[in-house]
Amino acid sequence: MDEKLTSKTEGKPIRCRAAVCRNPGEPLGFEEIIVAPPMPHEVRIRIICTSLCYSDITFWKMKDPPGIVPRILGHEAIGVVESVGDDVLEVTQGDTVVPTFLANCGECVDCRSKRTNLCSKFPFKVSPWMTRYENSRFSTLEGEVIYHFLSVSSFSEYTVVDIAQLTKIDSTIPPDRACLLSCGVSTGVGAAWRTANVEEGSTVAIFGLGSIGLAVAEGARLCGATRIIGVDVNPSKYEIGKKFGITEFVNAEECKNKSVSQVINEITGGGADYCFECVGMASLVEEAYASCRKGWGKTILLGVDKPGSKVSLASFDILHYGKTLRGSLFGGLKPKSDIPVLIKRYMDKELHLDDFVTHEMGFEDINKAFDLLIGGQCLRCVIWMDERVCHVTS
Amino acid sequence: MDEKLTSKTEGKPIRCRAAVCRNPGEPLGFEEIIVAPPMPHEVRIRIICTSLCYSDITFWKMKDPPGIVPRILGHEAIGVVESVGDDVLEVTQGDTVVPTFLANCGECVDCRSKRTNLCSKFPFKVSPWMTRYENSRFSTLEGEVIYHFLSVSSFSEYTVVDIAQLTKIDSTIPPDRACLLSCGVSTGVGAAWRTANVEEGSTVAIFGLGSIGLAVAEGARLCGATRIIGVDVNPSKYEIGKKFGITEFVNAEECKNKSVSQVINEITGGGADYCFECVGMASLVEEAYASCRKGWGKTILLGVDKPGSKVSLASFDILHYGKTLRGSLFGGLKPKSDIPVLIKRYMDKELHLDDFVTHEMGFEDINKAFDLLIGGQCLRCVIWMDERVCHVTS
Ligand SMILES: [Zn+2]
Ligand SMILES: [Zn+2]
Ligand SMILES: [Zn+2]
Ligand SMILES: [Zn+2]
Repeated sequence: MDEKLTSKTEGKPIRCRAAVCRNPGEPLGFEEIIVAPPMPHEVRIRIICTSLCYSDITFWKMKDPPGIVPRILGHEAIGVVESVGDDVLEVTQGDTVVPTFLANCGECVDCRSKRTNLCSKFPFKVSPWMTRYENSRFSTLEGEVIYHFLSVSSFSEYTVVDIAQLTKIDSTIPPDRACLLSCGVSTGVGAAWRTANVEEGSTVAIFGLGSIGLAVAEGARLCGATRIIGVDVNPSKYEIGKKFGITEFVNAEECKNKSVSQVINEITGGGADYCFECVGMASLVEEAYASCRKGWGKTILLGVDKPGSKVSLASFDILHYGKTLRGSLFGGLKPKSDIPVLIKRYMDKELHLDDFVTHEMGFEDINKAFDLLIGGQCLRCVIWMDERVCHVTS
Repeated sequence: MDEKLTSKTEGKPIRCRAAVCRNPGEPLGFEEIIVAPPMPHEVRIRIICTSLCYSDITFWKMKDPPGIVPRILGHEAIGVVESVGDDVLEVTQGDTVVPTFLANCGECVDCRSKRTNLCSKFPFKVSPWMTRYENSRFSTLEGEVIYHFLSVSSFSEYTVVDIAQLTKIDSTIPPDRACLLSCGVSTGVGAAWRTANVEEGSTVAIFGLGSIGLAVAEGARLCGATRIIGVDVNPSKYEIGKKFGITEFVNAEECKNKSVSQVINEITGGGADYCFECVGMASLVEEAYASCRKGWGKTILLGVDKPGSKVSLASFDILHYGKTLRGSLFGGLKPKSDIPVLIKRYMDKELHLDDFVTHEMGFEDINKAFDLLIGGQCLRCVIWMDERVCHVTS
């Protein structure tokens, strides 16, 4: 669909519109920026749509490193290849791609291992640079450098992403559904499916029913879990949660004289088989750990807590209860092989994605999307980009 | 071998000699005690030999609960059935049995599950009582109650143990070898074999080369690990460790400006596949966690730390490194089915037990065994009991 456009822009800087964060926690400002052509192993893509993930808000507010300005946030998106750098054989102009904050180089010992999804060639990096060359493809018209975010920076009409962080997908899936698989929904579904490997008939408890928690419920439902207990402070989450497989609800603020873990231990007769912490609160990880079954319970940490926060567990409990604690980044999924599987399951009407999209709007309203997500009124707000202002420079 | 004796004592209290702890941390005193006949589901056994495990020392020193006096310590032993209570069908007079602090009732949901070895019918209990009836079988000649320890209390010529905590074994194995499988060696070998499920070709790091740590090495060797790194502050442990499969040694006090985890990350090129903490120090668990491989490393906690101690891990590390933390009690073994497997592997000359026994002595010298173990001069000291002073009372 972009053949004509890309033939004109290939190899040249593109001038386009981006929403730039110049002051932590303050509204993004629209700027005309320059997006350099892709370096070898890189791909320049036109963003079709991007959705707001809670990590965007976390890092938007962050003043200390890895908080940095000016930078272009956004990491949950879908795009079309505008042009490719040297040595890119995997995709070509016009291909539909999903960028991911997690790399999948396919060559390192970790990418070749079935035991992990954490590429060791390009480890997780927040900012300021793209991973491979440690520099930026973004600048202002005056030449000021603008920083990258999670090597994606999708709050721009065009961005450059390393081929290790792009998954080519079938373009028949609606873009406002596919973009959810770029981060949040994949993280939650994958955590149940790949990291925990939830078994049929299991009991699952999910702490925090935002999009990630609900995606865990969706993943647990697909794995055949029979009891999926949602825990949240907002009782309206129960009704929403039912759409994603939540079968029971614990209101964390109405446990009276009991802790949430006491309540879960009681209603499950000894704890849930799998507990997922999706809020990003170390104390809640401890509560989740206390809520999982002695002998075989697994607690999976998904939430992003403040830098420096610590999870503290009693040595006695670790030794005597036989429980497992581990984290899950991108749900344990290897993007290039697992995102296509999730897309197929959506197209086969097994995986529910539609109900995650509570809002859609144009790029110009992106600051409203921040307000909506902060206000807890939305699961996913999909932002459609606009290509009118794309120009070739020089 | 005891038929004549047991026919006389069955159903009657037995008067015999025990080493009783009356003051925490002070030498045990020999006393004539009365051992009541077994209640239903219980078995009275004559101890053949018992060995000293570090947990005996930990609880011997302990002043606060579950420290309690007077009590009979000892939990690593082998014995012969003197008589059985009602409803005991599994063993009979003259059978050779190994008691274990871990129950294995065989009926509860946990015993029937392959996922755990933690019997939920009789959970782990230190003192003061036997588990099933919550009372004692021991008293002084004056009728003062003496407390039990780990439901075994093997520092007595006779003791009573619940059938859920006894494993019948083939009596052809030398008793001073089989008794090691009652606690320490099983815990270490099992942790590598069952809890971690160490894979062929793995790299393993073991923190603390006491008997448990060396038994982990032995288990890892049997599982086919190719690099088995021992970490200790005592350099003489390297030579000892080689007998059990240790291939490399890190002297924790000679890491110069580096932490042990930095050294292990360097020599392994990114961390060990499996790390085992065998000392019982929360800070060492954290160091072990930092020493295991990003992506798939597993840290197994085996050491018994002080009550109230906490393991503290950075949320960021848990989330981003994909490592697993779990504990292992009795090495994840189910006593009744797994101890016979270990015995067979010893008889088949696969499992090394002989080198664990560094000292053997008579019951009267038991306080010397405490000194030896505390002094770090011994791995296992086997104490042979003496039946001369056994009498039938009343
Ligand atoms: Zn890789
Ligand atoms: Zn995200
Ligand atoms: Zn049981
Ligand atoms: Zn022991």
